[in-house]
Amino acid sequence: MKTLTVELGERSYPIFIGQGLLGQAELVKPYVTGTQVLIVSNTTVAPLYLEKAKQAFSEYDVKTVILPDGEQYKNLDVLNQIFDVAIENRFDRKCTFVALGGGVIGDMTGFAAASYQRGVNFIQIPTTLLSQVDSSVGGKTGVNHPKGKNMIGAFHQPECVVIDTDTLNTLEDRELSAGLAEVIKYGLIVDYPFFEWLEQNLPGLMARDPVILAEAIERSCQNKATIVAKDEKEAGLRALFNLGHTFGHAIEAGMGYGNWLHGEGVSAGMMQAVYLSKLMGDLTQTDQERIAAILQSAHLPVMPPKEMSVQQFLDLMAGDKKVQAGQIRLVLLKAIGQAYVTGEYPSELLERTLIEYR
Amino acid sequence: MKTLTVELGERSYPIFIGQGLLGQAELVKPYVTGTQVLIVSNTTVAPLYLEKAKQAFSEYDVKTVILPDGEQYKNLDVLNQIFDVAIENRFDRKCTFVALGGGVIGDMTGFAAASYQRGVNFIQIPTTLLSQVDSSVGGKTGVNHPKGKNMIGAFHQPECVVIDTDTLNTLEDRELSAGLAEVIKYGLIVDYPFFEWLEQNLPGLMARDPVILAEAIERSCQNKATIVAKDEKEAGLRALFNLGHTFGHAIEAGMGYGNWLHGEGVSAGMMQAVYLSKLMGDLTQTDQERIAAILQSAHLPVMPPKEMSVQQFLDLMAGDKKVQAGQIRLVLLKAIGQAYVTGEYPSELLERTLIEYR
Repeated sequence: MKTLTVELGERSYPIFIGQGLLGQAELVKPYVTGTQVLIVSNTTVAPLYLEKAKQAFSEYDVKTVILPDGEQYKNLDVLNQIFDVAIENRFDRKCTFVALGGGVIGDMTGFAAASYQRGVNFIQIPTTLLSQVDSSVGGKTGVNHPKGKNMIGAFHQPECVVIDTDTLNTLEDRELSAGLAEVIKYGLIVDYPFFEWLEQNLPGLMARDPVILAEAIERSCQNKATIVAKDEKEAGLRALFNLGHTFGHAIEAGMGYGNWLHGEGVSAGMMQAVYLSKLMGDLTQTDQERIAAILQSAHLPVMPPKEMSVQQFLDLMAGDKKVQAGQIRLVLLKAIGQAYVTGEYPSELLERTLIEYR
Repeated sequence: MKTLTVELGERSYPIFIGQGLLGQAELVKPYVTGTQVLIVSNTTVAPLYLEKAKQAFSEYDVKTVILPDGEQYKNLDVLNQIFDVAIENRFDRKCTFVALGGGVIGDMTGFAAASYQRGVNFIQIPTTLLSQVDSSVGGKTGVNHPKGKNMIGAFHQPECVVIDTDTLNTLEDRELSAGLAEVIKYGLIVDYPFFEWLEQNLPGLMARDPVILAEAIERSCQNKATIVAKDEKEAGLRALFNLGHTFGHAIEAGMGYGNWLHGEGVSAGMMQAVYLSKLMGDLTQTDQERIAAILQSAHLPVMPPKEMSVQQFLDLMAGDKKVQAGQIRLVLLKAIGQAYVTGEYPSELLERTLIEYR
């Protein structure tokens, strides 16, 4: 087992990564306060891992909430189902909420924990590659609004994160690929050696080699943790994680939440950012092809959906959280492994990207 | 104008108290970031004060949300109306939410500000005596769940609070009395000289003498600010504010939200706590009568509603946030001006209180 610490002063927390961690009571015990534990999962993950996960909390009063599976259920109404169960069972302020599932379950359970009685304990057990390398690190929680993703939420750090790589054995191929989009992203934004390592090890990752997966997860979490530690509330540096996300969120919203996976939107979105970076004179055609190649090896889309018009992109991107005072801020690349955030680009280059790269 | 500072380190903020403060741009300007301001008010307050309040923000892009008036609308659905307007108008992360109204508007707007894009700026302009002396100080925000008050929320401090005592001129008598319940509470829990001052000045307060009202508001806010500064997240000391609230919340819930005003429930609830304190041997019959007398002078109820059974009280109190591990914790009095929190009382004395004091 590897242990990584996200350094956030009094809100620091450990991430445990390894095989067979699910159900280990000793691992989570130091992080549970009170006597009541609410495990939130979904209809896909619960049949596979709920019983195993519960074993870790056998000495507590455990209740469960099983939500429908999918990004389209990440809203205030479904969130309320978590509150219903907590309140009906008279969960008090010392209780612990446990998220068992992917990013949607993590985000919703985290926001429920942030808001229930103005804040209770939270433990994350992410079961998809995407949530293991992305949403489980950094404390971002929330739900979607019909007109914008993650518009309602809170920063709420977990007490600990348990990543059991065995849970990836049951992950659908498409979900594994979506997770790899975020893994590759870390190489692109801050870690060129990791990008090179990924180019070499992508076949092993696609074949779900547990050792290679564990290393990819650890290096991704380490990259994310390092940046989050420097910028907890997303004042600056942390915005780098949004490479491909402003385009990607527009794709997710434009195609209807749940049709394109988050990682798929990010993959096509990263390529749009790469194309714009090329127009800016920072990346070469070779860089673009190299990045497209690794994404394609991971069976990820490298083109935005044909159905979406340039205007639709612009409208949806203008509604994104990254907009300040009307200016669409984007994450672009100076080089592979060197991202930056900017609102200072010629707007015609953004339009050219949307027109030409499709 | 009086200025009071709530000391919370980097989250410290000023409370301005005086006549004619509404609409003063210079007062709020230092506390607005960005260019977008969302003023949230209700159908009662908006016709009276919205135009005046807007004058203070004339150099910003101002949008408004007018919600229905009443505790029964303090829920997730109505909260969503605030998000709708913010998102439709593409409010960004630097925007400021302004609460113009009573406690319900303050709590909902504050929670909306805490959650919108994971947290935006918040300014409070409380227009009822209750919200001026209670909910505007301390950063507690939230909405109700059908089975419990304030079950969903966040701690989110405002940038500043503007208390214009002129807004009390249009306050209904019943609302004024409800606010006085909380004013009297500060005397009861920590400030015996203030309690004596209130006994003397209650006629002036009921007559809405602006000078006496301003002094009562200032001393109430000062008492609250002192305690909040020592205990921002309600770990201990701050629980004293809940004198009468565990009983009072049960009354509000039992009678249906909106039928008993919060201050009315607190008033009857404080008398129940006083009676129990007498059974504990700490207060005298004379103390009880003296406290009942000042509440009655403020035209407040001193008895719980006859409609509610002992069992109903116990059930509703057991669901309250103050419960930890099944034990109902209560705020009781050692003397007038000296409250304490305890779960260590003979449970038969609580039952005797519920049976006898009605």
